Amino acid sequence: RIMRPDDANIAGNVHGGTILKMIEEAGAIISTRHCNSQAGEPCVAALARVERTDFLSPMCIGEVANVSAEITYTSRHSVEVQVNVMSENILTGAKKVTNKATLWYVPLSLKNVNKVVEVPPIQYARKEQEDEGKKRYEEQKLDRLETKQRNGDVILPVINPEPHTVGYSQSSLIHLVGPSDCTLLGFVHGGVTMKLMDEVAGIVAARHCKTNIVTASVDAINFHEKIKKGCVITISGRMTFTSNKSMEIEVFVDADPFVDEPRERYRAVSAFFTYVSLSKEGKPLPVPQLLTETEDEKRRFEEGKGRYLQTKAKRQAQMQQAAQQ
Amino acid sequence: RIMRPDDANIAGNVHGGTILKMIEEAGAIISTRHCNSQAGEPCVAALARVERTDFLSPMCIGEVANVSAEITYTSRHSVEVQVNVMSENILTGAKKVTNKATLWYVPLSLKNVNKVVEVPPIQYARKEQEDEGKKRYEEQKLDRLETKQRNGDVILPVINPEPHTVGYSQSSLIHLVGPSDCTLLGFVHGGVTMKLMDEVAGIVAARHCKTNIVTASVDAINFHEKIKKGCVITISGRMTFTSNKSMEIEVFVDADPFVDEPRERYRAVSAFFTYVSLSKEGKPLPVPQLLTETEDEKRRFEEGKGRYLQTKAKRQAQMQQAAQQ
Amino acid sequence: RIMRPDDANIAGNVHGGTILKMIEEAGAIISTRHCNSQAGEPCVAALARVERTDFLSPMCIGEVANVSAEITYTSRHSVEVQVNVMSENILTGAKKVTNKATLWYVPLSLKNVNKVVEVPPIQYARKEQEDEGKKRYEEQKLDRLETKQRNGDVILPVINPEPHTVGYSQSSLIHLVGPSDCTLLGFVHGGVTMKLMDEVAGIVAARHCKTNIVTASVDAINFHEKIKKGCVITISGRMTFTSNKSMEIEVFVDADPFVDEPRERYRAVSAFFTYVSLSKEGKPLPVPQLLTETEDEKRRFEEGKGRYLQTKAKRQAQMQQAAQQ
Repeated sequence: RIMRPDDANIAGNVHGGTILKMIEEAGAIISTRHCNSQAGEPCVAALARVERTDFLSPMCIGEVANVSAEITYTSRHSVEVQVNVMSENILTGAKKVTNKATLWYVPLSLKNVNKVVEVPPIQYARKEQEDEGKKRYEEQKLDRLETKQRNGDVILPVINPEPHTVGYSQSSLIHLVGPSDCTLLGFVHGGVTMKLMDEVAGIVAARHCKTNIVTASVDAINFHEKIKKGCVITISGRMTFTSNKSMEIEVFVDADPFVDEPRERYRAVSAFFTYVSLSKEGKPLPVPQLLTETEDEKRRFEEGKGRYLQTKAKRQAQMQQAAQQ
Repeated sequence: RIMRPDDANIAGNVHGGTILKMIEEAGAIISTRHCNSQAGEPCVAALARVERTDFLSPMCIGEVANVSAEITYTSRHSVEVQVNVMSENILTGAKKVTNKATLWYVPLSLKNVNKVVEVPPIQYARKEQEDEGKKRYEEQKLDRLETKQRNGDVILPVINPEPHTVGYSQSSLIHLVGPSDCTLLGFVHGGVTMKLMDEVAGIVAARHCKTNIVTASVDAINFHEKIKKGCVITISGRMTFTSNKSMEIEVFVDADPFVDEPRERYRAVSAFFTYVSLSKEGKPLPVPQLLTETEDEKRRFEEGKGRYLQTKAKRQAQMQQAAQQ
Repeated sequence: RIMRPDDANIAGNVHGGTILKMIEEAGAIISTRHCNSQAGEPCVAALARVERTDFLSPMCIGEVANVSAEITYTSRHSVEVQVNVMSENILTGAKKVTNKATLWYVPLSLKNVNKVVEVPPIQYARKEQEDEGKKRYEEQKLDRLETKQRNGDVILPVINPEPHTVGYSQSSLIHLVGPSDCTLLGFVHGGVTMKLMDEVAGIVAARHCKTNIVTASVDAINFHEKIKKGCVITISGRMTFTSNKSMEIEVFVDADPFVDEPRERYRAVSAFFTYVSLSKEGKPLPVPQLLTETEDEKRRFEEGKGRYLQTKAKRQAQMQQAAQQ
């Protein structure tokens, strides 16, 4: 579809969240279709995890987004989907890859939302494809367990914070979950959640560096708990790390089922977003260093630095590998 | 994309206007892409006309709409696009054709919006395709001239109207044109206009028969004049004809460029929509007869009857032809 | 237009904010049209104030909202508009008045946004109409000055609050101002701000009483400062008073022009919203009493009680007057 002014920031760059939402919609369609392809219990695929994804080049107002999706692996109870997004300037014909994302879906029964349905197996062209898929499946399963522990953390308010401290840019947003945010099962689409997370992370980044900012990448996101229609969700973001030219923001999603359920507020999702600051010409700008004050802030900064260096090393290894081929 | 609650009426049927908007977006993308495919002046395709289209089967919330578009004819200054819409129930895998539409676009220069750019010719597989396309081109050109005259009419308010009269159900809606309604040239997307027209026509139909109604077909729509960002548009609808099981509603779109231009309010578009009334089980219901009072209303009723009988005859001829093949 | 699922809460009642937004759009259109009706400087009408308005009866999904607007007074630099909203159930034909609102607009030059343009005078049917309008004009002018002082207050975060305290239900929401939120001048529509204010107030009310809540009335709202495109706005709400069957919530709007301007965060709007709690059958429910802890909270509770008693007395006087006539 054509990108509209509402999909973009003032500089005309489409929000990362808009792209994440399109990716998730494509993934949900293809995996729901696949899971219902054999005569079995009708089901709807729910997003369980998005692997780390980079925003390779910006998309602009007036460009057309082409989204393609393919199922690359199935386990007994989950589906791996690979989604590619290309931006196309229909005036010049120029096409660019803007995103490649890997998503994991779990099919939930339409009659009993707590029941996970069996996934029809796909055929692999080569045996190695299945083995590699299985490896990815095991890895993400492990990672999902790990991040579940990180999830107890809360963001406390700060009064009169200094510029460039964590408290200065931290932000939160509340959203009342409406019918159009939800799947047939009455739970929030993963893509809707990701769009709101990107919105908060973008506000944190802009508050910190007061320039035009764009999403550079999103770390793996795990969806631990479903969010029901009618909930109020609070999406909170705080900066955890800055390098010379990038900022890492941690985002939490908490759901408050305050109307008809006796349940307490719970943590539904958490993730790390990386942003860069751009000049009017679209060149990366230096980012003011984050001032850490408490022990926790210093620890999170070091952890962020670890993730940053790891990603950098991985990218360099890939580039060397590519150069050698 | 997946149909959401906001795309549909209370009974879960997707509004005809939502489908028309998707059709137009697909048409605008493919024709803008084609017109910029040769190194020439950058341009944006503007909708000039939509041929009569039938809504063959209803689409429901939760279904996926698959839209495909193809260029079927090019004249020197216009492009004919054929768009097909299929609804897909991703739970059952059932697919149905919901719409086939033919649209005409005119490429306008990005630098000078009043300049029509030349269209690169397409290749035809067979000579007959070109000839048939040319015939369609001539026919629509003639029809566009004719409808331009009809356009002077206005809808006057009626005080305390009787049920089932024209005045009883006539309705109008105003809309302030925002940035997301517009193309890169700053003019309203044809699809946005059609969606609003369907909304008004639907209110007229529901007021008349007080049941669940759905769009059955749309007569050819001609876009005589562009509508600029910042305009206020008034969309008015009145019932013109009822058969036993259908209602015909005439819809006018008037633009009021009230801020920065000295121009008068002008008629931008007009069209006929046909609606049917459905029971809770989705069966067609009888429609109360329209009570005509004035001479003009009686004349319009007869004209509507003429269109109705003509369409009916055409459809029967097609069915006989299909049966004979 | 027809009310959609996203316009309403889970119980199907249309949000007060959706109605306020429609009212403001109608007011902006009629006053902009009027101010441009004589050959003068092109201008856009900006909302300066909304008088106190009551929500007389709820509107539901599927109903049609009929909005009518009329200019009732003009001063040299401002326009008073009276807007009426009726809900129409198009299936039964039943119509109800849901709102009557009075709005004040100021025309700003399209070329120089800081310049207020002169308003063409309207003709009054009787001299008394002009005199009464002038009286209303003077009264609102006085009130606008007064509320400007109240505006310094801030909402401080509370950690681990007890149920039914002020801190327990207070909420805030951030919103990045996008192009569709803005007028041709690039400033936020008053109606967009009011919709967000109602959203926050509704969340505060729902958090307090954990039932289905609806907007009962909105106190006069003054728009002290414009909010520019690209700002981040923070809308915060806290409960100030509860009677047996109603809750009063104070809402603040702060704008943070953080991208291209060196300006500090400023208070743009503030207002009081009154909510009632409804049972599933639509009957008013008792509201848990607000627990006030600090001196400020106790003072605000008393002030709220004053407003509540004043409104009650005024309403009783009107009813007696009506009974005597």
